[in-house]
Amino acid sequence: MNGYTTEIDVRFRDIDAMGHVNNAVYATYIEQARTEYFRDVLDADLSSLATVLASLSIDFRRPVELTDGTVAVDVSVAELGTSSVTMTHELRAGGEVVAEAEATLVSLDPDSGKPAPIADEHRSTIESYHDI
Amino acid sequence: MNGYTTEIDVRFRDIDAMGHVNNAVYATYIEQARTEYFRDVLDADLSSLATVLASLSIDFRRPVELTDGTVAVDVSVAELGTSSVTMTHELRAGGEVVAEAEATLVSLDPDSGKPAPIADEHRSTIESYHDI
Amino acid sequence: MNGYTTEIDVRFRDIDAMGHVNNAVYATYIEQARTEYFRDVLDADLSSLATVLASLSIDFRRPVELTDGTVAVDVSVAELGTSSVTMTHELRAGGEVVAEAEATLVSLDPDSGKPAPIADEHRSTIESYHDI
Amino acid sequence: MNGYTTEIDVRFRDIDAMGHVNNAVYATYIEQARTEYFRDVLDADLSSLATVLASLSIDFRRPVELTDGTVAVDVSVAELGTSSVTMTHELRAGGEVVAEAEATLVSLDPDSGKPAPIADEHRSTIESYHDI
Repeated sequence: MNGYTTEIDVRFRDIDAMGHVNNAVYATYIEQARTEYFRDVLDADLSSLATVLASLSIDFRRPVELTDGTVAVDVSVAELGTSSVTMTHELRAGGEVVAEAEATLVSLDPDSGKPAPIADEHRSTIESYHDI
Repeated sequence: MNGYTTEIDVRFRDIDAMGHVNNAVYATYIEQARTEYFRDVLDADLSSLATVLASLSIDFRRPVELTDGTVAVDVSVAELGTSSVTMTHELRAGGEVVAEAEATLVSLDPDSGKPAPIADEHRSTIESYHDI
Repeated sequence: MNGYTTEIDVRFRDIDAMGHVNNAVYATYIEQARTEYFRDVLDADLSSLATVLASLSIDFRRPVELTDGTVAVDVSVAELGTSSVTMTHELRAGGEVVAEAEATLVSLDPDSGKPAPIADEHRSTIESYHDI
Repeated sequence: MNGYTTEIDVRFRDIDAMGHVNNAVYATYIEQARTEYFRDVLDADLSSLATVLASLSIDFRRPVELTDGTVAVDVSVAELGTSSVTMTHELRAGGEVVAEAEATLVSLDPDSGKPAPIADEHRSTIESYHDI
């Protein structure tokens, strides 16, 4: 299975009073990787699609500091359901894994707001991109 | 078992391009509730304690909007280990559950940076506060 | 001239690596006060109005810390032009002025995106509220 | 006079409910440019120096969108006083100026917290770098 990786620059504002990248910022890094995946792989604008994040879980491995400079975020697809997709993420800095995460997105019917099948073109692109 | 609840004001800046409170901001709301729990229940400053967030998982139930005004965040203790504590959180807005979350904090030895037993005074306060 | 004041809770996430509320967060506090002013005084939703922030300047008087708890933000109107309004803000914590700021908003024609006269009802409400 | 420029990636989280980069995020972009200037030009860590931001003013020229991709931020030195430095910034996206800003930093005595002369090595490096 192939993956997608993007590099995110760590900002001074990402650091909190503890001197490390704040835990909520990992969610922002993962969201940014997801946004770029939609743009680059699916040729789609995440904010204009009727999708919603159903769940997010993050395991923090080691703190990230400003001097790490960048964090690489992988996007893999663990499960492709009828109306949902579960993505897994590895975050790395300085060659080390700093976090692992899993996010489940649900496709919605824009009118009813209820779960709806993922568009065929997106499904086939995801299957082909990740060889699943 | 007793719980602890705090109310967080939703800010305009919490809303993202989708028109809802951004997913990463839920982590900030949970962190804020944890900070206030440490201050109010343990009489401790979270940022000065040698603790680290080991994991965080959030299940999103429904979007939160600016007009919701505030989000209530509960802090309960699901598991109190030797060096770790797992807190569960229910987030509510307008009387409805908007998210459920679980966060595991690990107490560290400030010198070695390795897991260390939770201070006795904190353990007994947690046990007594939550009646566990 | 009368003023409008709102209280903003300081969050752990507002603090940066220096241990104080980050400078960008003052802009967020000011925006939040503006949002609540639009809601409470003008009965309007700032994000649905065609307005744009033209300029913002902040003079920082003293650092704000998490233990300050809340920051009070005043909203006064320094100048009410045809299509723009200049608001001045005093930010206080612990009874002390922590910053002073000025923000100029411009009303836009939603179609052309060019400056347009402020709606009469908003103008008269602002004049009457601030007694100008 | 020479300048320093850095490129900042726009994140999905930088966008607010209006669909544009939020005004407070400009302060974060400027801070990030300042941080990198300190690192690259002065070989110094901004967060470990005893400096404080005394004032910040931003003139917004046009909205920035996620599709702009990056924002370039210039750092120039407009005035180098005994204990303060005033930096001017031009922010550009897609070849257009999107904002202009001015920030004044004050060097502090770490013990007294009062203004103190800028270190000689930093003064001479700034003068030589900008040819002032």
